Amino acid sequence: MTSENLGWMNDWTVGVRLWVERSGEAILGPGRLDLLEAIDRCHSISAAARALGMSYRRAWLLVDSINRAAGAELVHRQTGGRDGGGAVLTERGRAAIRVYHDLQARVHQAALNPMP
Amino acid sequence: MTSENLGWMNDWTVGVRLWVERSGEAILGPGRLDLLEAIDRCHSISAAARALGMSYRRAWLLVDSINRAAGAELVHRQTGGRDGGGAVLTERGRAAIRVYHDLQARVHQAALNPMP
Repeated sequence: MTSENLGWMNDWTVGVRLWVERSGEAILGPGRLDLLEAIDRCHSISAAARALGMSYRRAWLLVDSINRAAGAELVHRQTGGRDGGGAVLTERGRAAIRVYHDLQARVHQAALNPMP
Repeated sequence: MTSENLGWMNDWTVGVRLWVERSGEAILGPGRLDLLEAIDRCHSISAAARALGMSYRRAWLLVDSINRAAGAELVHRQTGGRDGGGAVLTERGRAAIRVYHDLQARVHQAALNPMP
């Protein structure tokens, strides 16, 4: 397959959707990653939800789903305090983010310039 | 990041969905690839549709969408004959299948064993 033969494919592009799961349950995809990173910045689920234009209820349920699917707490919810408690990423949560970014970089690299 | 730190991620798996598009229109994804390969085997859209348990109408519209999105004929429909004409892959259609398989292999390789 030479490049002359495939010149007509030059305007083709590759789309990739990537997620991490456990026992068939989604742990992390692009949206969930955004939420974890916002929680890491805001130290609060409600502030993270606001920053992403997401309802508090949806963010709370996503955190629940992430922790359950991961089989370990990636986000630790602190109870009490004036605002009903903040939330922080656990060490595992931070490790999961690094793993996802690493995976994403490798997959995007592999998908780049696929037309020989 | 050592493997001891991430042992708890051992049962995590990676999901990837891959497609090729042009100007935002899908050309090839897993289902469309199956259809092209079935047409290549059957030399007929209706036989390919039957083999995949798909309606003839759906297969016909998909072929239309594939050819239009690709900006070139990947499937050539022959008119006339007892069965209303067969269909064959063009050289470009075969090249597109090879490119997709190659891309898929590289992306799956990159996504493999992502947990260090």
